[in-house]
Amino acid sequence: MIHDQVPADDRGLLLGDGLFETVLADDGGLEDFDRHLARMVRGCAVLGLEPPTEAAALDVAVRALEDAGLGAARAAVRLTLTGGSGRGLDRPAPTSGRLIASASAAAPASDAAVSLRVVSIRRNETSPLSRLKTLSYLDNVLARREARAAGAEEALMLNGRGEIACAAAANVFWISGGRLFTPALDCGALDGIVRGRVIDAARAMGVEVAEVTTGIDALEGAEGVFLTNSLIGVRPVASLNGRDLPQSPLTAMLSSRGRGSARPAGA
Amino acid sequence: MIHDQVPADDRGLLLGDGLFETVLADDGGLEDFDRHLARMVRGCAVLGLEPPTEAAALDVAVRALEDAGLGAARAAVRLTLTGGSGRGLDRPAPTSGRLIASASAAAPASDAAVSLRVVSIRRNETSPLSRLKTLSYLDNVLARREARAAGAEEALMLNGRGEIACAAAANVFWISGGRLFTPALDCGALDGIVRGRVIDAARAMGVEVAEVTTGIDALEGAEGVFLTNSLIGVRPVASLNGRDLPQSPLTAMLSSRGRGSARPAGA
Repeated sequence: MIHDQVPADDRGLLLGDGLFETVLADDGGLEDFDRHLARMVRGCAVLGLEPPTEAAALDVAVRALEDAGLGAARAAVRLTLTGGSGRGLDRPAPTSGRLIASASAAAPASDAAVSLRVVSIRRNETSPLSRLKTLSYLDNVLARREARAAGAEEALMLNGRGEIACAAAANVFWISGGRLFTPALDCGALDGIVRGRVIDAARAMGVEVAEVTTGIDALEGAEGVFLTNSLIGVRPVASLNGRDLPQSPLTAMLSSRGRGSARPAGA
Repeated sequence: MIHDQVPADDRGLLLGDGLFETVLADDGGLEDFDRHLARMVRGCAVLGLEPPTEAAALDVAVRALEDAGLGAARAAVRLTLTGGSGRGLDRPAPTSGRLIASASAAAPASDAAVSLRVVSIRRNETSPLSRLKTLSYLDNVLARREARAAGAEEALMLNGRGEIACAAAANVFWISGGRLFTPALDCGALDGIVRGRVIDAARAMGVEVAEVTTGIDALEGAEGVFLTNSLIGVRPVASLNGRDLPQSPLTAMLSSRGRGSARPAGA
């Protein structure tokens, strides 16, 4: 395994100083690898970290798959870039980042609808980190925990202003009046890769898409609600706060059209 | 060294899932060790982690000092408790935490005044994590980075409502009309141990102390501003946003009286 251990002075461990990507591997391909890497590179610019090269990122991803014996299986490849070794808030200069990867078997594709619950923990939309996949993800861990304790499978997070932001590990969409809605990124939503694919696919189908700033009332009367992330793709929401939601045929249509292109993981 | 490596599937590394304490060791004693441990135990209740026993925490702290050859030196002992090994937002059940420690030489005690700058990154006062020392500390890393880039030594962070919260790695106090002020904890301030000591010491001296919810305007006309944390103790602030601040004799008086009691680190 690549990097089955990291030094205990790693800044990812000590301070959550770093970024990650979770890439779906299937049939020997790494889905939307280029977009994942591009997002990590954008995150590096915000954090002031040296971005990994494409060759280095692809190399650790492929080796993680091979080492886990998951070469052609459906798997989740986790790429983690940390601020390297160093104590204290100030990074050492120059900062030498640490890029590691691991792979684990992913659940089969599913369109089973999930239960969603609004939780008390808010997204900090004032922080640039709210749009990035950083190693400081504990708010999301606690949000999920709160949803589970209330009997739901996933948490819907509002931001500090009370606007809909995203789920603990997914973006959220809803359909209303035949139009598709999702929170604007400056609501504290992650700039999700499947989110972008779904927006493009909807527009290509002639569906109007709006990125909006709105409270939870917007979900009242929605014709369908769904979640997106790189592992689950598009997943319908069965219920919100215990109340059953209607299902829209548009969700299934976007599920089949909102996937990316795979990059061969083989050499 | 104890735990000079951690497994790459540690949740502290992957998700910032865990807590830390930084304890000042000096002359063979661990200052306010009991209060540090009590705060970690309170944090565990919020995070749903099994708290470490006193014996285990003391053991790793003492061994970290010894392994670093810093037995009686002035040193910073970093205690880190992570959510253990496990991928994904949901913790494995039961969760088996991982407690590690390291020690490094600490700077000599100093009363040199520091320069402070208000930064753009806000504390998320809506999250219970804003009162805890969690491993998801990247907002603070970026806040410090922004302050340094502007030529200051430390960052003053407001919260989402625009109220004063704390510095990137310290609590903040100011003196106005002979009274002592500091942000209330629900402004998103860390429940600092020296913060508590200073409040007690001021009251014992007959100084009125108010924990307040207020904007940055409250610092206009302050007779003195200072920072507190376990390593620096009480440190005066020389300037805010490049403007020199007056110095109050109360700062030095609290610096000498606001320290805790040491616990012998020896067996």
